[in-house]
Amino acid sequence: MNSPGKLITKNSSFEKIIGFIGYIDKLKSVIRQNGLHDDSRAENTAEHSWHAALSAVLLAPYANFPVEIDKVSQMLLIHDLIEIEAGDTFVYNDEALALQEQAEQEAAQVVFGQLPEDQGESLKALWEEFEARETPEAKFAKAIDRFLPLYSNIQNKGYSWRIHDVSQSQVRQICHIIEDGSTILWDLTEGMIDDAVEQGFLKP
Amino acid sequence: MNSPGKLITKNSSFEKIIGFIGYIDKLKSVIRQNGLHDDSRAENTAEHSWHAALSAVLLAPYANFPVEIDKVSQMLLIHDLIEIEAGDTFVYNDEALALQEQAEQEAAQVVFGQLPEDQGESLKALWEEFEARETPEAKFAKAIDRFLPLYSNIQNKGYSWRIHDVSQSQVRQICHIIEDGSTILWDLTEGMIDDAVEQGFLKP
Repeated sequence: MNSPGKLITKNSSFEKIIGFIGYIDKLKSVIRQNGLHDDSRAENTAEHSWHAALSAVLLAPYANFPVEIDKVSQMLLIHDLIEIEAGDTFVYNDEALALQEQAEQEAAQVVFGQLPEDQGESLKALWEEFEARETPEAKFAKAIDRFLPLYSNIQNKGYSWRIHDVSQSQVRQICHIIEDGSTILWDLTEGMIDDAVEQGFLKP
Repeated sequence: MNSPGKLITKNSSFEKIIGFIGYIDKLKSVIRQNGLHDDSRAENTAEHSWHAALSAVLLAPYANFPVEIDKVSQMLLIHDLIEIEAGDTFVYNDEALALQEQAEQEAAQVVFGQLPEDQGESLKALWEEFEARETPEAKFAKAIDRFLPLYSNIQNKGYSWRIHDVSQSQVRQICHIIEDGSTILWDLTEGMIDDAVEQGFLKP
């Protein structure tokens, strides 16, 4: 991280937060596997996080249960911050996923540890809640997080599926947790998967 | 916009929202004048919106008045959506700014008009509240929105200031509204501007 000017000495809580706001700019340079809808380039994790947070707000009426939507939105704003340290792990890479948990816990310490203690602990707890996928908010947030890359693959005819030779059954397995958060979104997802196979850009 | 699959016929509210989530992917391709902190490329409006919404959550304790922070965050998630239709207008371009208001109102109709009526009206009202800069939430959101590009210019030694030959007095004038939302953030801003002039990457 560059020095953010002599006024930011990181002694006070305010200065720590300003330093953190500079640090998280790096999330714009973490590149994901899936592409933009118009197929022009790969997506980065910062713009994905924006898309997810706003999509959750819009789709809140279609969650399977009442959700505290502001909590879901905040969860999605921070859900991938640890990728600044741990990088993006492709959901269809089993080997990488097995190594991921430990690395992500360590990354979470580094990332959230830069904030004033109360804020850092509160955001880390929110990230852990998201990962545990037990509360209504986490289930709905995960549904949105899984739906968006599928939607982009539908729009750009399998940008990341092609690269990684992904099959229909893998997509169904990975996306199935959408149903835990929103049945109507899962119904749409299933139709989209059928469509993708029929159109020939997802392996049967 | 590509066709999002045969299941999305846009007849129901759900289908309109799904269509809208596809449409707003375009915000990732709206390029702003300022650069990333590491000077690697220009920023796009989607990742800026993420940065702004999360920064507001983090800096909420430093607003000049109590703010409904979830409203501020949502405001910042949607504050630049109209740029999908109207493009980004550089804040230091007076001529463009004069033409901007009418164009933005028309863009707002196009953008928010794609949503189910109640959601579209509610988000358009939130955008108008942001633009009017009268409520505590709008004042604080605007402060964050003005602070972030200044902060990136400090980190990358004047990426957008160099391109557009911007002077210190212009920066002070444009950024001064930060004080309406957060005095401590304005104090930091003033120090940063002084620093930039001293270091020679902002014209005195």
